[in-house]
Amino acid sequence: MERITVTLGERSYPITIAAGLFNDPASFLPLKGGDHVMVVTNETLAPLYLHSIHTVLERAGVIVDQVILPDGEQYKSLAVLDQVFTALLKKPHGRDTTLIALGGGVIGDMTGFAAASYQRGVRFIQVPTTLLSQVDSSVGGKTAVNHPLGKNMIGAFYQPASVVIDLDCLKTLPPRELSSGLAEVIKYGIILDGAFFTWLEDHLDELLALDPDALSYCLRRCCELKAAVVAADEFENGQRALLNLGHTYGHAIETHMGYGNWLHGEAVSAGIMMAAHTARRLGQLGMDDIRRVQVLLARAGLPVTGPKEMAPADYLPHMMRDKKVVSGQLRLVLPRSIGQAEVRTGVANDIVLASIADCQA
Amino acid sequence: MERITVTLGERSYPITIAAGLFNDPASFLPLKGGDHVMVVTNETLAPLYLHSIHTVLERAGVIVDQVILPDGEQYKSLAVLDQVFTALLKKPHGRDTTLIALGGGVIGDMTGFAAASYQRGVRFIQVPTTLLSQVDSSVGGKTAVNHPLGKNMIGAFYQPASVVIDLDCLKTLPPRELSSGLAEVIKYGIILDGAFFTWLEDHLDELLALDPDALSYCLRRCCELKAAVVAADEFENGQRALLNLGHTYGHAIETHMGYGNWLHGEAVSAGIMMAAHTARRLGQLGMDDIRRVQVLLARAGLPVTGPKEMAPADYLPHMMRDKKVVSGQLRLVLPRSIGQAEVRTGVANDIVLASIADCQA
Ligand SMILES: NC(=O)c1ccc[n+]([C@@H]2O[C@H](COP(=O)([O-])OP(=O)(O)OC[C@H]3O[C@@H](n4cnc5c(N)ncnc54)[C@H](O)[C@@H]3O)[C@@H](O)[C@H]2O)c1
Ligand SMILES: NC(=O)c1ccc[n+]([C@@H]2O[C@H](COP(=O)([O-])OP(=O)(O)OC[C@H]3O[C@@H](n4cnc5c(N)ncnc54)[C@H](O)[C@@H]3O)[C@@H](O)[C@H]2O)c1
Ligand SMILES: [Zn+2]
Ligand SMILES: [Zn+2]
Repeated sequence: MERITVTLGERSYPITIAAGLFNDPASFLPLKGGDHVMVVTNETLAPLYLHSIHTVLERAGVIVDQVILPDGEQYKSLAVLDQVFTALLKKPHGRDTTLIALGGGVIGDMTGFAAASYQRGVRFIQVPTTLLSQVDSSVGGKTAVNHPLGKNMIGAFYQPASVVIDLDCLKTLPPRELSSGLAEVIKYGIILDGAFFTWLEDHLDELLALDPDALSYCLRRCCELKAAVVAADEFENGQRALLNLGHTYGHAIETHMGYGNWLHGEAVSAGIMMAAHTARRLGQLGMDDIRRVQVLLARAGLPVTGPKEMAPADYLPHMMRDKKVVSGQLRLVLPRSIGQAEVRTGVANDIVLASIADCQA
Repeated sequence: MERITVTLGERSYPITIAAGLFNDPASFLPLKGGDHVMVVTNETLAPLYLHSIHTVLERAGVIVDQVILPDGEQYKSLAVLDQVFTALLKKPHGRDTTLIALGGGVIGDMTGFAAASYQRGVRFIQVPTTLLSQVDSSVGGKTAVNHPLGKNMIGAFYQPASVVIDLDCLKTLPPRELSSGLAEVIKYGIILDGAFFTWLEDHLDELLALDPDALSYCLRRCCELKAAVVAADEFENGQRALLNLGHTYGHAIETHMGYGNWLHGEAVSAGIMMAAHTARRLGQLGMDDIRRVQVLLARAGLPVTGPKEMAPADYLPHMMRDKKVVSGQLRLVLPRSIGQAEVRTGVANDIVLASIADCQA
C-alpha cells in the first residue's frame, strides 16, 4: 500500500493506493461507525462496485444512501447536480454528512462541487475509478460542472477529506478510457519530470497490460507530482497552471465537438501536440522532443492530430473563453523541453493557428 | 460617511455607509479604470438605479455589462443562477471580472454564489438596496440559492471585496420591505446588545420615517455587530449561529407558505416570538422581556404570530431540514435576556410545538 499526503495545513489529506481497497472499510478514511454517507455514482459503475462498497461500509456501522446518475460528460451539468441535492434533501442529510464520489472525473468533479455547495460545504471522499481520475482529477480540489458555453465554468476549489485508489477497478475500464488517462500521465513527464517521461517510454507496454507493479509506481509518481504542485499553489495563481498543458487547445476540441465525443484525454493529447508545435514555432522546443512526445502519445493509443471536422479558426473563440484568459490575453502552457514547461502570454494568433494546422490530420 | 472593516486577514473588506454613494465612482472600491464588471440586478431595481451606476462607472473607465433577472425569492434558484453564468460566458467575462450585486438579499445571495462559482471564484461587490440586505445579508459572505426542498441549501461562504450602502435608496423601498429589514435589526438587539435594543425602542419612529441620522447610526451599529461576529466565526462553527435567532422557525414558514408569500423578515419576526416562548417554557426568559420584544416587533409593522394556515405540527419536518441540524438533533437559538442568546440542543419536541402554539393567531 502506498500513502501520499497532500499538504495543505488543516485541510491536508491522504491518498491511499493499493489493490483490493474496496473490500476493507478502513480504506475509507476518515469515516467511522454512525456516519451518514451519500455515495454518488453512475449507471455503469453501480452494478460493478456499489454493492460491495455499500456492504463493507454498512458492516462498519456507516449509514449508506446512494444516488445513481446517468453516465457521460454531457451529464456533468447544473441540472444533474440538482439531482444530487434533491437526493440529499429527501432523506434529509445534514451538514455532518459525507459525500463519496465513486467514479471517474465526471462523477468526481460533480460530487466535489455538490459537496462544496450543499449547505455551503460538507465533507467528501474521492474514490476515483478511471486512470485519469486517479492520477489527476481526484487530487487537488478542483471541482466543477460544465455550461453549454464552456467546460468546467461553474465550480469551486474544494478539497476532499481523502482519496481512495483501488488498482483493481482499472480491470473493468474500457481500453479507450485507459488511453485517455495516459494522456495526463504523459503530461506530468513533459511538464515536470523528464526521468519519469523516460520511465514511461520504457514501461508503457506494462501499463497498457495493467501490470500491478508498473501501475502502482506510475500512480504514486503522478499523485506525488500533483500533490506537490497543489501544495505549492492551491488556487492556481502560479505554477499549478502548468498542469493545463494541452488543455486550452483540448477544451476547444471538447466544446466544439460536443461533450463526450472526444474523451478528455484524447483532446488533451491532440492539444499537447499543438502546444508542442507552438513552442517549436517560438523557437523553444526541438523537433527531436516533439517526435518523442508524438511517439509516446501514439503508442498509448492517443490521437496526435485534431478532429478533421475542425479548422484552425474554429479553435480560437473557444480558447478565448478559457479560464486562463486574463484581460483578453490568451495564456498558453508551453513545453521548454521534456521535463519543463512555462506559461506564456502574448503569443501571436497566427502562430497559434499555424501550430493547430501543424496537427491537422 | 461611515466606514467599517470586516477583519478577515487577506480577505478583509470595507463597508461604506452614506447618502449619495451611487453618484460617486470612488464608492465602488476596489474598482479601477479598465476593469470589466457585470452588474446583476432585477426588473424592479434596474429602472431605478442601473442607469446612474452604469454612467458613473463608465465615466471612470470601467467596462460595464449587466444582467437583469426577474424579481422575487422564487427566482433565487439554480435555474436563474444559470442565466447569470450564461450572460458572463456570452461576452465572455474572464477570471478577472467583477460581479456587482445591485439589489436586496435575493440578488446579493445569488450574485455572491455566482461569483463564488464562476470559474471557481471571481471578485464581487455588494450594493445592498433593502434595509435587510444592508444590515445583514450583504455582510459576512454567506451566499446561496434555494432548492424546492429547502431554503439556502446550495451555496458557499464567499466574501465580497467591498460593501457599498447608499442610504438614499431606502426612499424607494416599499414600507413592508422596510419592516422586514427591521426584524433583523431588532434581532441584533436581542442577541447581542441590550443597549441597542433600548435605543431602538426610543428611535423606531425615526427609523420608520427614514430620518438620516437615526438610519445612519442604526446601519453602522448593525454592521459593526455583524462584522464582529463574522470576524470571530467566519464559517459558523460557533457564535455566528446566534444570528439565526428566529430563523429555524421562520424558514419553516417561508418553505411551507411558498417562497415569496411571507417576507423573510416577517417569517423571522414570528420565529423570534416562537423562540422567545420556547425560552420562556424552558424557564430562561421572563414574560416582561417577551412583551418588550413583541411590542417592538409589532410597532415595526411585523407579524408576531405565525400564519393561520400552519398548524404547529407543520413546522417540525421543515425545521429538521435546517442547516443547524446535526446528527438529527435540532439546534435552536434561544434568548436568555434582551441582549444575550445561546444555542440549545435537546429541546423536547413538545416544548417546541407548544411554543409555536403560543404564537398562533
Ligand atoms: N478536477 C480536475 O482537476 C480534473 C482534471 C482532469 C480532468 N477532469 C475532468 O474529468 C472528466 C473526465 O474524467 P474521466 O476521464 O475519468 O471520465 P468519466 O468520468 O466520464 O469516465 C469515463 C467512462 O468510464 C466509465 N468508468 C469509470 N470507471 C470505470 C471502471 N472502473 N470500469 C468501467 N467503466 C468505468 C465511466 O462510467 C465513463 O463511462 C472531465 O469532465 C474532465 O473535465 C478534472
Ligand atoms: N446571506 C445572508 O447572510 C442572509 C441574511 C439574511 C437574509 N438573507 C436572504 O435575503 C433574502 C431577502 O432579502 P430582502 O429582504 O432584501 O429581499 P429582496 O431581495 O427580495 O428585496 C425585496 C423587494 O424589494 C425590492 N427592492 C429592493 N431594493 C429596493 C429599493 N431600493 N427600492 C425599491 N424596491 C427595492 C426588490 O426588488 C424586492 O421586490 C432572502 O432570500 C434571505 O434568505 C441572506
Ligand atoms: Zn485534464
Ligand atoms: Zn435573516
